Amino acid sequence: MNKSIKIFAPATVANLSCGFDVLGCCLDTVGDEMIISLTSNPEVKITKIDGANLPLETHKNVAGVAVEALLKAYKKEIGVTIEIYKKIKAGSGIGSSAASSAGAVWAVNYLLDSPFSSQELIAFAMEGEKLASGNAHADNVAPALLGGFTLVRSYKPLDVIKLNTPKDLMITVIHPQIEVKTSDSRSVIKHNVSLQQAIQQWGNVGGLVAGLFTEDYELIGRSLEDVIIEPLRSILIPEFTAVKEAALSSGALGCGISGSGPSIFALSKGDKTATLVADAIRNVYSKTGLKFDIHISKINNDGIKIIEV
Amino acid sequence: MNKSIKIFAPATVANLSCGFDVLGCCLDTVGDEMIISLTSNPEVKITKIDGANLPLETHKNVAGVAVEALLKAYKKEIGVTIEIYKKIKAGSGIGSSAASSAGAVWAVNYLLDSPFSSQELIAFAMEGEKLASGNAHADNVAPALLGGFTLVRSYKPLDVIKLNTPKDLMITVIHPQIEVKTSDSRSVIKHNVSLQQAIQQWGNVGGLVAGLFTEDYELIGRSLEDVIIEPLRSILIPEFTAVKEAALSSGALGCGISGSGPSIFALSKGDKTATLVADAIRNVYSKTGLKFDIHISKINNDGIKIIEV
Repeated sequence: MNKSIKIFAPATVANLSCGFDVLGCCLDTVGDEMIISLTSNPEVKITKIDGANLPLETHKNVAGVAVEALLKAYKKEIGVTIEIYKKIKAGSGIGSSAASSAGAVWAVNYLLDSPFSSQELIAFAMEGEKLASGNAHADNVAPALLGGFTLVRSYKPLDVIKLNTPKDLMITVIHPQIEVKTSDSRSVIKHNVSLQQAIQQWGNVGGLVAGLFTEDYELIGRSLEDVIIEPLRSILIPEFTAVKEAALSSGALGCGISGSGPSIFALSKGDKTATLVADAIRNVYSKTGLKFDIHISKINNDGIKIIEV
Repeated sequence: MNKSIKIFAPATVANLSCGFDVLGCCLDTVGDEMIISLTSNPEVKITKIDGANLPLETHKNVAGVAVEALLKAYKKEIGVTIEIYKKIKAGSGIGSSAASSAGAVWAVNYLLDSPFSSQELIAFAMEGEKLASGNAHADNVAPALLGGFTLVRSYKPLDVIKLNTPKDLMITVIHPQIEVKTSDSRSVIKHNVSLQQAIQQWGNVGGLVAGLFTEDYELIGRSLEDVIIEPLRSILIPEFTAVKEAALSSGALGCGISGSGPSIFALSKGDKTATLVADAIRNVYSKTGLKFDIHISKINNDGIKIIEV
């Protein structure tokens, strides 16, 4: 049994336009680092957080809560210490809390010689998400844990499916460093939708899943359409329309809001196009006076990675 | 150029539970026969209809209207005669009108040496559907023309995707010979749905498409769930709940309403299970005193077939 492990806990993009609350994918070049150790002292301790002002108290920290959910199911007395080197900015909309929750439970499971399945780890990590946002959603923790593209088919019971990842698929993400309150990004969403729009949306979900399996990049692009949430939420993101137009006219397959925003993602075929897309959206945002980060990444088909055992 | 062709125009099952208005699949053992001939007299004539009381006037017949839409696009002066040997009962909910529309345009296109693509043929056949139901839907004509499982990703523009067909997938269909008025089956549907249910539905659409591509029969079964339309429409179908329970307890992967009903379909893995399912639902329906047909079929991955050239 290894006593300590250093891991890379990746950022993730949830929703992917049409797949509100069900689809997500995993990034490769953006993520936190975490050092997780087993101890004989039967408690969970956050011993260090670097790069972010987050609570060290276990029950207030998403990684702490997620690991406690795991240990409750494990039943044997064991202690865990967690160091978090935060590189994903909180509130960016690319799964900052999910990286911590998913990374922590993945590492503990590894150190315990994998008593739990991926589906079980997703459920534990969702407890962290519940702490972070009040809602135990899986659309970021699932791609962080499974890698690639994931579909949350059902929550009751939890049923998460790993989809196929076309090998040339690249993602470009812009994170405008503004704060969008979760309450605002929720309150713009309506509780009811027209059946007509719902049908369009599930047509696109079907198309996107089919496009991923058949590696039909054009179909993936055509399916990256959100007729329900994006028209409402995009008003909270400065220059969303200009960024989307710039991305599409630079060759992106599709472009939309990452999670609940404010980050915006674009999928492209090949790194050349992904870089052109990054240049084009940088050009839009550099005129705004707002601070922003831009990431280019291939889709990380592995999810969490071991840096050092 | 062949002057005359005899074809098999298959029955189809639309919606497939979660995929209301977008998914459909093609049957192999149930379908009409049609004889289509080119003539030099530039008009479309329905010369014979056997097995059903349907209009012979071209503009009132779905096959006639569909072929006229094709010829309008073809632009050259040509005539067509159509004989229809109807085996799919009208109003059964397994694509009776779609078989005629799709069969007619497929055959004319074949005789003209294929000037039109499948997507174009779907659009012509949809004109027949518009005549039949007032709504130019594609979820029956698409599987009839393409075979296998199809997804109508979008209507504007029309974008139909052929999905994968797992080789052991079988379908059992019961057609209770009752009349459900189209106006009734429409009026029970609500124009708005809750976002929560819409999310469940598109999670299932994603799961079903993924299950078809990965040939994961269990996933296909779990995804055959309709939380929006079935609870409303099933009240129009006698013993729907008993049939569904009988099908599932006999090993069916899933069971739901075929199209707008009254037929009920069940998918199974293997013909042994499909036969057990047929026996179980026959047992339910034979107690009702209602007339009914039961069909067992593999999924027809080819669509329309040539009987004789």
